[in-house]
Amino acid sequence: MVANEKNKKLGKSTYIFERPPVIIASATVAGPKEGKGPFGKYFDKVYKDKILGEKSFETAEATMMGKAVSLALENAGLTEKDIDVFLAGDLLNQIITANFTASSLGIPFLGVYGACSTFVESTMLGCMLIDGNFVKKVLIATSSHNSAAERQYRFPTEYGGQRPPYAQHTVTGAGSAVIAQAGLGYKVTHATVGKVMDMGIKDPWNMGAAMAPAAADTIINIFNDTGTKPEDYDLLITGDLGKFGSELAIELIAQQGIDISKIHHDCGAEIFDPSQDTHSGGSGCACCTIMSLGYFLKQDKFKKIIIVATGALHSTTTVQQAENIPTIAHGMIIEK
Amino acid sequence: MVANEKNKKLGKSTYIFERPPVIIASATVAGPKEGKGPFGKYFDKVYKDKILGEKSFETAEATMMGKAVSLALENAGLTEKDIDVFLAGDLLNQIITANFTASSLGIPFLGVYGACSTFVESTMLGCMLIDGNFVKKVLIATSSHNSAAERQYRFPTEYGGQRPPYAQHTVTGAGSAVIAQAGLGYKVTHATVGKVMDMGIKDPWNMGAAMAPAAADTIINIFNDTGTKPEDYDLLITGDLGKFGSELAIELIAQQGIDISKIHHDCGAEIFDPSQDTHSGGSGCACCTIMSLGYFLKQDKFKKIIIVATGALHSTTTVQQAENIPTIAHGMIIEK
Repeated sequence: MVANEKNKKLGKSTYIFERPPVIIASATVAGPKEGKGPFGKYFDKVYKDKILGEKSFETAEATMMGKAVSLALENAGLTEKDIDVFLAGDLLNQIITANFTASSLGIPFLGVYGACSTFVESTMLGCMLIDGNFVKKVLIATSSHNSAAERQYRFPTEYGGQRPPYAQHTVTGAGSAVIAQAGLGYKVTHATVGKVMDMGIKDPWNMGAAMAPAAADTIINIFNDTGTKPEDYDLLITGDLGKFGSELAIELIAQQGIDISKIHHDCGAEIFDPSQDTHSGGSGCACCTIMSLGYFLKQDKFKKIIIVATGALHSTTTVQQAENIPTIAHGMIIEK
Repeated sequence: MVANEKNKKLGKSTYIFERPPVIIASATVAGPKEGKGPFGKYFDKVYKDKILGEKSFETAEATMMGKAVSLALENAGLTEKDIDVFLAGDLLNQIITANFTASSLGIPFLGVYGACSTFVESTMLGCMLIDGNFVKKVLIATSSHNSAAERQYRFPTEYGGQRPPYAQHTVTGAGSAVIAQAGLGYKVTHATVGKVMDMGIKDPWNMGAAMAPAAADTIINIFNDTGTKPEDYDLLITGDLGKFGSELAIELIAQQGIDISKIHHDCGAEIFDPSQDTHSGGSGCACCTIMSLGYFLKQDKFKKIIIVATGALHSTTTVQQAENIPTIAHGMIIEK
């Protein structure tokens, strides 16, 4: 019991892994618009349309998550029987995409909800279960679907409602990863659990601005808790702040004397080309997941990376009731 | 690193805690109907009405979860500053009650969704983070509100729709617990992660029948994985199978040669008196939470207890799209 005496908590809310778990395999799938974007060629599968021959956008989303999961398992050379626990979540009410995927897998499941921060939430929890010696192999997955999200959160797309310039476009796609005690791949060395922040923003179109303070708080905590500086990293990825939210987050962090501008990339701001008419950029659980797993981690040039996934935690009911939008950002440090 | 070599997994999906975390304090709050039920006097606070002077049922639910959390912290002699991480979830879309409560607490937060299984899901994850030596003190909470759930999942109560005899009544209430590395209270010795099961049931009124196979699977796994028998326990609590679901679960488990009838109590079947016109009984995240923490754990007579919380993981969209209801059950063994 001696080894367990070691405190794994650093500073306010960062945890260090004693034996860093490894992302041994992953897979990403994407919708047609994402496929036509600047990173389309990096995703394992790009669908030609958003319905995939299914009867609804919701079942299409479940099919996408299922595909990402089966490709990730295949890339790992494993089957679902090798996995101890599946951690997943998505944007749809009652995280139904994750529930249906878990049902088809038939392995122990823990559902999580962190909106667009779900990728890092599920990965960090999986790593904690591995490093805590409960499980050996974890499967994680997230997804989002533009048409399913639009009709749940806003209006059916047929309605043709105007979108303000700071609006973001929910990414259609899914990503999955297999995390193991050991193996080849990026090691997850640290995780920072975010806290829910409410800056008084009520406009559900303006999620980038709502999430920027949560992202800034988590990023500042990562640097302070670990005693590191931006220069110590090759890359800092944020989830889906979009163009407006990214500017705001960089500024908030600069106010604390930390300049992240040289290493910062935002998945939401970059996943679409400006010509694709997505205003401030992409959003949704899939955005950070497919950009991180599908593009950034596939590059050989980045050795030490911070990933901070942000989430806007409102519901349609709370927006109608004129409540503020609570937001969160979870972070992790990975190293090749 | 030697101590970490020990495998904490038993059998299919049960985990043993090396140093069993302790539920050092808890608190429960309930609505007026629950207060008039057979266990009303055991809850820490019973509200006189379901709106609590708030502007909506949804904000009333958030107020209830906030109250349960503040009472649990008070009972533990702690403040939110002493807590490393808050794990919570509820039935409302995007687990908004948990998000608002986390926002008011300002401490690191991990949102989970397991419908009515959330109590055990959040507790088992909290225990894994403690036993994995990441955190020292965890706060968990769940809630449900009859009127908020009715209008989200079914119809506004004013509509007066008829309910079939196997329907259950969503419990209005909230429960919270503080879990620590050591202290006085029930120790959590084992946790069993459930898998999602889909038995082809599509009727959202018939949740007890939908959840019974998931409960049976998890209960059988607990006995098999730990090599124990019903006689080894003083009590087996199930979450909210209700009267019909309980009969079905007992029968399914008996088919495997295991007789749980002598130790089994179902929170849903017992929380209301038959005269309270709740058909098959209670349901909702709060049901298992307030009955377990508020009544069963406060009794001195039960030494070794199994708690299995069940969840129906459907959404209104999937019911309208005629999809099956996926279900899950998570279990844990606690000991005084």
